[in-house]
Parts: sequence; C-alpha cells; structure tokens
Amino acid sequence: MNRRVHSREVKAAAMERLRERGVTIDGIAEIVHRMQSPYCEGLTMDLCVESVIAVLEKREIQHAILVGIELDRLADRKQLSEPLQSLIESDEGLFGCDETLALGSVFGYGSIAVTTFGYLDKHKIGMIEKLDTKTDGPIHTFLDDLVASIASAASSRLAHRIRDEEERKGEVPDSHAG
Amino acid sequence: MNRRVHSREVKAAAMERLRERGVTIDGIAEIVHRMQSPYCEGLTMDLCVESVIAVLEKREIQHAILVGIELDRLADRKQLSEPLQSLIESDEGLFGCDETLALGSVFGYGSIAVTTFGYLDKHKIGMIEKLDTKTDGPIHTFLDDLVASIASAASSRLAHRIRDEEERKGEVPDSHAG
Amino acid sequence: MNRRVHSREVKAAAMERLRERGVTIDGIAEIVHRMQSPYCEGLTMDLCVESVIAVLEKREIQHAILVGIELDRLADRKQLSEPLQSLIESDEGLFGCDETLALGSVFGYGSIAVTTFGYLDKHKIGMIEKLDTKTDGPIHTFLDDLVASIASAASSRLAHRIRDEEERKGEVPDSHAG
Amino acid sequence: MNRRVHSREVKAAAMERLRERGVTIDGIAEIVHRMQSPYCEGLTMDLCVESVIAVLEKREIQHAILVGIELDRLADRKQLSEPLQSLIESDEGLFGCDETLALGSVFGYGSIAVTTFGYLDKHKIGMIEKLDTKTDGPIHTFLDDLVASIASAASSRLAHRIRDEEERKGEVPDSHAG
Repeated sequence: MNRRVHSREVKAAAMERLRERGVTIDGIAEIVHRMQSPYCEGLTMDLCVESVIAVLEKREIQHAILVGIELDRLADRKQLSEPLQSLIESDEGLFGCDETLALGSVFGYGSIAVTTFGYLDKHKIGMIEKLDTKTDGPIHTFLDDLVASIASAASSRLAHRIRDEEERKGEVPDSHAG
Repeated sequence: MNRRVHSREVKAAAMERLRERGVTIDGIAEIVHRMQSPYCEGLTMDLCVESVIAVLEKREIQHAILVGIELDRLADRKQLSEPLQSLIESDEGLFGCDETLALGSVFGYGSIAVTTFGYLDKHKIGMIEKLDTKTDGPIHTFLDDLVASIASAASSRLAHRIRDEEERKGEVPDSHAG
Repeated sequence: MNRRVHSREVKAAAMERLRERGVTIDGIAEIVHRMQSPYCEGLTMDLCVESVIAVLEKREIQHAILVGIELDRLADRKQLSEPLQSLIESDEGLFGCDETLALGSVFGYGSIAVTTFGYLDKHKIGMIEKLDTKTDGPIHTFLDDLVASIASAASSRLAHRIRDEEERKGEVPDSHAG
Repeated sequence: MNRRVHSREVKAAAMERLRERGVTIDGIAEIVHRMQSPYCEGLTMDLCVESVIAVLEKREIQHAILVGIELDRLADRKQLSEPLQSLIESDEGLFGCDETLALGSVFGYGSIAVTTFGYLDKHKIGMIEKLDTKTDGPIHTFLDDLVASIASAASSRLAHRIRDEEERKGEVPDSHAG
C-alpha cells in the first residue's frame, strides 16, 4: 500500500510550493549576495544563484520545504486544530518549531550557516522582510524561516567554495613559513 | 484578529494529544527507567515519572508535540498534499523532519539527551517499539520520535539531578586532593 | 587515580577564567539589555544580571568556558601544535570549532537563543566588539563566542520568563474566545 | 604576523594525528559496515572506506580532529589547568564538550548521522570500544567521540548515496501511481 516517493517528485513538489508562495531563486540569491559580498570582492549574482540551486538539490531542505509550507497553507485555510492554528496564524514569538525545522537543514552547512541564519532571523532583509510584513496576505510563519535557511546554507557553501578556489589558485601560501 | 494563546491551553492540548494517541507518562517513565538504571543503583519509577512530568512542562516540547501529532493525524485522514502524504504515511527512512522536530527539544537537555535520543531511535524499546510496529493502526511517524525525545530529555535531566544530589550529600569530595 | 571534580570547583574556576580575561557579569548583562529591551518595555539591568547569573550556573556552560579559554590561553603562550596554533591565533573565519563549542550550550535555551547567537556573531556589540578588535592583546578566538553564547542564552531565558510573568498576571487572556 | 593555513596542511595534520593515536580508515570503515549492512544487502567494505575518506575531506571534521586530539594529548602530558585536566582525564560523564565538538560535524550529514552517533555513544563497537576501555594507555576522551562522529557521518552519507543509486537504476518507481 505504501509507496516510495522518487526524489525527482520530491524536488519538483518543493520547487512548485516555493513558486506558489512567491519565492524565487533570484530573490534568495539576492540575500546571499548581500550577506557575502562584504567578504568577497566582485561577487557575482551568478555565483549566488548557482549556490542557491545547489542547496535546493538537498533532500533534507526539500523535505523541510514540503512540511513548512504545508503547515502555512493549512493555517491559511483554518484547517489546523486549536491551539496550533492560533500559534501559527499569529507567528507566536516563542513558538520555535518554525526555526527548529529550518535549522535542521542549516546545520549541514557549518557554523557560518548557523550564524547567518540567526542574523537573518533578527535582521530580515530582501524577500524575507516582504514575507514577514504581509499582514493581510497568506501566512508565512514557516516560509520566512525556510527562505532564511536556504539563503544561509547557500551563503556558507559559497564562503567555503571561494576559499577552495583561492587555495587552488595559490593565493593562500602553502608552507609553514607562512 | 490574532490571539495570544495562554501556555495553560498549550499544555492542556499537548497532554490531551498524547493521551489520544495512547501515550502515557508511565509508559515514557518506563523507558527512562530502563535507560538510566544501569547508571543509578536503586533508581525508583517515582523519580522517572517526576522527570517526565518536568520535561512536559516545557513550552518547546509542548509545541513540538502539537505540530508532530497534527501531522500524524492529518496523514491518517489523507489530508496532506502529495508527496508529503506518502512520505509521512510510509515513514520514509530518509525523511528526517520527524527527527529534526524532536531533536529541537532534546538539545535543551545536553549531550546525554542527544546520545540517548540517537540510541532510542535505533534501538526502540518499550512504548516506542509498540508505536513503531503497529502496521495497521494510526500513523506514528512523528509520535515515536516525540516519545523518544521526551524520554531522552527526562533521562538526561535525571542524570544531572542525581549528580547534584550526590554532591549535596557530600559523596563527591570537594577538594583538589580528591 | 582519577578524581571526580565537584561542581563547586568547576563553577569557581569558570568564573575566575572569565574574570582573568576581563569579562564581567555586568558587561554580558548590558548585551542582554540591548538585545531584549526592544521586545520588553521598561526592562531593568537587574533582570538582565539575574538572567546571566542563572545561565552561568549551568554545568554545560561552565565546561565550555573552561575548554574555550584554555585553548585561547594556550594559543597566547604558543603552546599548541601547528597548524592548530595558527588557526586559533588568526581567528580563521572557516575554523568553526569556536562557534560549535559555544552553540552546544546555546541550544539548551531554545530557538531565540540560537538566532540571538547568530546575530551577535555577525553584529558584535558591547564587550563582544571589544574582545573581537583587540589586535595586540590576548587571543579571544573562543572567548568572544562564549560571551555571545552566555548573552544569547540569558536573552532567551529572559524572554520566556517575561512571558510567564505576563501570563501569571493575567495579561494574556486564558480562553478560547481569545 | 598571522598566517593563513592552507587546507592541504590542515588535512595532512588531521590524518597524521589520527594515525598517531592508532585510528585507521579501515577501522572506522568497519564500524560503518556494521551500522549500515542491516539496511543494505551486499554492502562492501570498499564502499564504506570510500565514504569514510569522503567525510575526512571536510574542513569542519578536520578542525574538530585537531582540537579534540590536541586536548587529549595535553591531558596526557598533564599540561591542562585544573579542573579541566581532571575532567578530561577522568572522562567525566557529564562533561559534554567532547560530544558537542564531535556533534558539530555530525549535523552536516542529517538526522541519520545524529541518531547513529547517539547509538555509537551508548553502544560502543569496534575501534570505539577499544579506545574507550584502554585504562592505562593514552587519554581518548575526545578521540572516541571523534571516531564515532566520522563513522556516523560516513554511515549517513552512504545511506543517501545508496538511495540515489537505487533511484538512478529505476528501482524506485517514479510516478504518482506508485
């Protein structure tokens, strides 16, 4: 009776859910660009887009997107039981399950990802700010944390890649004399 | 329009959800007893029950219970969209959101809690085994991890309390001479 | 041969290490005050100090303080082996062990603590800024993250306490009518 | 004055430290084999070795190895200040920093990695058991957790790869009809 779900289907559904809620890869890449350009002169949007796409390939992130947006959508339609309906509808500050779900996929990208996530949670920029302030529109209690988690993971991935590239090009001296 | 939910209401709802899914405080306390009695001679069930009750007082755990059991119940009624419905229904091994949600409240109790949670996830004992093996009954994809997280948190809390008590009684020498 | 260490000794040593490196409870409490006063009208420094002291009572935080400051001190004296000595001395951005060690005790205080920690890591304020910018003085690679973790934990603890207090006073309506 | 350390140097040092403490890639791969063979018929040691090698390529794991083994070595030589020296020497059960440091790199590999780590911490197998029981030899307070973390990360990585391979071969049906 139970069926195994192919990862192609999971990925397609996760991308579709993001699109339906107005989240674009470019919008997330802009956040990555703002977070990482102070540390990386001449950072292009192309590199940021590439990093966001790579992060969205991960099963763990796709699953979190499916769960989080499902809960937001059910809350939109008042289909959750109380008091969960009210907790999600009001984006209750001490709720925490939205951050916990999003953090699960952030850890995978190291401590830079965790600290970037924390920063974005307090200092909402770009698309995250828009998601957070829509007071009349759809509920985005989980979605804003998911977007912050994708942007944080992509930022950390980029920082590591850029360092790897610098080392490959010989910009970091490889000797004890240092 | 939005209302703030009183923590009394959150707690009552979380306890009611556990009861409805057949989870009792005594059942969780038995797992705690089996996990901690090797490290603590003469450990009573009373102390384990007390520790489980204390853990269930935490907002973070109550919120995780509400979210997890809601998702299990919606999956029971086939009210989730695909492919999430199939992922939860089949308790897909690589899903991960069930463990992530449960881990959020485990971290609060330190590293003993995390390792106990990992052990219980692989080596299901007591009530967790029963929840995991019911193939015809209700879906417990999130519930078994929630029970493991409550038991792990209560085990770690107990280990710390017992040590505090030993120190209070002077069983740990308080000097450099050791 | 091995001796068990009394928690009184652990606590005294952790407090002494902080003092030696110039970290005061008041200094940490000021960070807490700046982080939490936007969410809490009329927040007093007394409440912040009390919250910092409570956090410093935790074994997990005391252990992290002992380990982190020990590594900073050994690096000061060039007593670490290479390349660890250089990694810590240069506060290498991708090092990560400093944040990991500090995060261990942050998780215990829930998602507000994790996001506050991330914010403080990017946006160093008060004493953390001073620790981060001393270029000639002692090495504070671990210490600045430890201070951020104590401040984050104390901020989150305070947010939960204030909410509890509001509920106790009846400021949050306790009914489904909301 | 400060020098940037090349990742080649970090990797070489981490591998050398493991070797000096008697830890081999084959020894870790055996643990991976025991953990994953129940879920994967015909799992070869070659695949496990490959997965361990891939995990050891990660900066975050290499840094944790350098920090953890350094602390074990300093404790061996009684070069840590008290009470940290005694806490590490006695492998104090409530210490926690050893698990925290090791967990940092485990998170990167998802929830299977975290639960495998928890299991290995309670149910020490293979090389981890040997490290844990040497009572006269060198101190392995951090090392046994590091080995458990590498084995856990490699186990989780393997589980995800095997699933990807099954999907590539068409063993998981890719349709809603399931």
